[in-house]
Amino acid sequence: MNDALQDELAALLGTAHVLTGDAATPYLTDWRKLVQGRARLVARPGSTEEVAAVMRACAARGVPVVPQGGNTGQVAGGVPGPEGDAVLLSLARMNRVRAIDAQNDTITVEAGCILQALQQAAREAGRLFPLSLGAEGSCMIGGNLASNAGGTQVLRYGNARELCLGLEVVLADGEVWHGLRGLRKDNGGYDLRDLFIGSEGTLGIITAATLKLFPLPAARCTAFAALAGIQDAGRFLARCRAGLHAVLTGFELISGDCLRLVTRTYPQQRAPLATLDAPWYVLLETSDSEDEAQALARLEAVLATALEAGEIGDVALAQSSAQARAMWQLRESITLALAEDGKCIKHDVSLPVSAIPSFVEGCDAALRRAFPGVRNFTFGHLGDGNLHYNVARPEGLDDAALHAMQPGLSRLVHDAVHALGGSISAEQGIGRIRTEDLLRYKPAVELRLMRAIKQAIDPRGLLNPGVLLQPPPL
Amino acid sequence: MNDALQDELAALLGTAHVLTGDAATPYLTDWRKLVQGRARLVARPGSTEEVAAVMRACAARGVPVVPQGGNTGQVAGGVPGPEGDAVLLSLARMNRVRAIDAQNDTITVEAGCILQALQQAAREAGRLFPLSLGAEGSCMIGGNLASNAGGTQVLRYGNARELCLGLEVVLADGEVWHGLRGLRKDNGGYDLRDLFIGSEGTLGIITAATLKLFPLPAARCTAFAALAGIQDAGRFLARCRAGLHAVLTGFELISGDCLRLVTRTYPQQRAPLATLDAPWYVLLETSDSEDEAQALARLEAVLATALEAGEIGDVALAQSSAQARAMWQLRESITLALAEDGKCIKHDVSLPVSAIPSFVEGCDAALRRAFPGVRNFTFGHLGDGNLHYNVARPEGLDDAALHAMQPGLSRLVHDAVHALGGSISAEQGIGRIRTEDLLRYKPAVELRLMRAIKQAIDPRGLLNPGVLLQPPPL
Repeated sequence: MNDALQDELAALLGTAHVLTGDAATPYLTDWRKLVQGRARLVARPGSTEEVAAVMRACAARGVPVVPQGGNTGQVAGGVPGPEGDAVLLSLARMNRVRAIDAQNDTITVEAGCILQALQQAAREAGRLFPLSLGAEGSCMIGGNLASNAGGTQVLRYGNARELCLGLEVVLADGEVWHGLRGLRKDNGGYDLRDLFIGSEGTLGIITAATLKLFPLPAARCTAFAALAGIQDAGRFLARCRAGLHAVLTGFELISGDCLRLVTRTYPQQRAPLATLDAPWYVLLETSDSEDEAQALARLEAVLATALEAGEIGDVALAQSSAQARAMWQLRESITLALAEDGKCIKHDVSLPVSAIPSFVEGCDAALRRAFPGVRNFTFGHLGDGNLHYNVARPEGLDDAALHAMQPGLSRLVHDAVHALGGSISAEQGIGRIRTEDLLRYKPAVELRLMRAIKQAIDPRGLLNPGVLLQPPPL
Repeated sequence: MNDALQDELAALLGTAHVLTGDAATPYLTDWRKLVQGRARLVARPGSTEEVAAVMRACAARGVPVVPQGGNTGQVAGGVPGPEGDAVLLSLARMNRVRAIDAQNDTITVEAGCILQALQQAAREAGRLFPLSLGAEGSCMIGGNLASNAGGTQVLRYGNARELCLGLEVVLADGEVWHGLRGLRKDNGGYDLRDLFIGSEGTLGIITAATLKLFPLPAARCTAFAALAGIQDAGRFLARCRAGLHAVLTGFELISGDCLRLVTRTYPQQRAPLATLDAPWYVLLETSDSEDEAQALARLEAVLATALEAGEIGDVALAQSSAQARAMWQLRESITLALAEDGKCIKHDVSLPVSAIPSFVEGCDAALRRAFPGVRNFTFGHLGDGNLHYNVARPEGLDDAALHAMQPGLSRLVHDAVHALGGSISAEQGIGRIRTEDLLRYKPAVELRLMRAIKQAIDPRGLLNPGVLLQPPPL
């Protein structure tokens, strides 16, 4: 499909960076393969000025634009819909580290920088960039910010939002907001930064960011504990927080069924505890400013009191980094093991930490009543109140039957979350997948405010249409 | 001035809570006495429903509303202008703690809750609410959030923004957004919370908030160090961060002139060091999860390496809480001692930490050239890159001459801050005092976005007109 826009973009970017046909195809499906979209073409600008030029060219023709980073999102927020009229704008070529200011503890990077490369650049400067998640080898920081990514160290360092000081953003009309500030305090006007963060590319295209850096931990300790009940997990978390404060950087809840699924699926992975039949496990991590001996002693002291109080039944403390990696590998293999088990119905929910036990017990029981034979595979970031609440099919049910079951089942789960003051999207966003849920669970006044903001900042609706906010019902 | 609106509000709130004349006067001047405003009346609603009813009554008549908390702001953002057409809405009666969820580490309070009462309520639940600032005995949390207050523990815990999980907000038309969520992760849509935080009452009236709580420190240590130069302060900060990580909760820079002004003005306050003639001092604080002996040992170890490296020349470690309080009292007396010295020209600026030495040296020198005889009294939160950059008059100059000097002098300071990537409002906001500065230093695209958001959320401009955003030039 050769057209004037394609010619103009090819002149701007070079023909090598305007893709159509087979070359464009890999950009049009999300990695979970939930959405197979279509696009007019794929544009790969290499600089902020080129992004702005692409936006101006598209705006002049009223052509929508779908920004894309590493395309690792769970909710298909970075791929186009079926219309075929949009330009897919890939930020992948904008992958430079622009600056590191070690004395200010900041790094400035372009949107297409792979998260792992960013972590590495920080490490080489003797600093920690703490955002860490399963997709870090391929996700890009621009997408992490556009979706306000979470991960395993939020308990200590916050979500992507909390790690960002400044942004550079290209708006729908091609204007550039140069907001790359490296300031810890700046109270001059409305918080545009946090409005763009988490807006999933619907208000502007993040092209670069100035991010916070932290001191590298002097020692990391990892432990794996068995628990007799979900209530104990909350008490154990409170004890760890009280005893370890900011030294506690990870607190992952893993159901016994998840652990046994992993060790059954991958027999080479061995459970770190003799106790194999516990209903719940916790993987916890500390990041200490003192040396390893002191860090271990500190963690051991807290674990001893938890054992004494009966909150944990058995616990293993990693004695080497290999042992620590093996513990984390168990945690990170849950998603893969679930995929081997066949399709399942996934939910990414958050709740007040205090509501987690009653949610898990109540919702598990309600599911078993309404959908006999379904199996729960629950794990998540307990310290953040964030559960990956996965539901696997009853034995023998085929994909079509599971698909038919999904809307009613997810409705039951999400209603239960909502009733307890939780969120149906903890860390993954809304994307194209959860727009109906947003309409169901958000208060009308909040939807009205969100639509007013979208209208104010992208009045022609050119940025990522169909993602996050659907148009109001007619 | 009896009128239909007054009658309606008196019927809604009771006549005791609709004030005019002398009873209204105390609400109409900011505490720095920079602005003497006028209002139609003062309304003191006692509940969210009453705030909403006041807003509906005002919106029906097109009457502007100025929300006010503790009225301790530095930029007159909580008092009306001279027009006299607005209703001043005081949140002071809405001062309840609605809920504490210790297991979720959250507290839900109404906007009129005094910051100190909120800290106390958290402490009684065995938790820390870390926001802390000079006005904490009279400022209210609603105002702290509306202005995104900072203070002395931002280095570790962040600004008011970072401490807030959820808001309840009454909009210009009287609708209520019930956003009191106690969630650490919630990626369902645009970040309205952070848009209201820091908007200085121009987008909505914050009536309640759900805030984060932290474990209480097991031990606090305080130290006071003398430094030979401003460059050393940056190196000393980096060393403390690397050695103490999140245990470092305060790092206050104090110029020698500030310290000597305090001890001269209040002879009963004694400097904690024999070194009285150093050009700079640092007051630092740690908040430890371990007991006092271990906490002191940890801090002593870091201070010993700083002494050895020559970054600090002399240091005193508080040996009792009385000694620690005396060190903090020196810091907190600077503003009062400056007031005794007579009016001075104040700036609340932030910079990348790495730019602080060149800013201080360059700007001090430029001021002495342009305004011979002026005296710098600089102090601030170095860990946040935030300086209170005060300039006192040359000896013998009267108030009128100082007043005449102010615009040119502040222009010089703010231009220097801006040139180094800093902000002319670090933690105090824009209010009525700095609206012209905002127009000068903000990029045009940012002002355009801010105006579009104001128009989208408060299209009739009823909320706090004249504060933060002035209308665009005709």
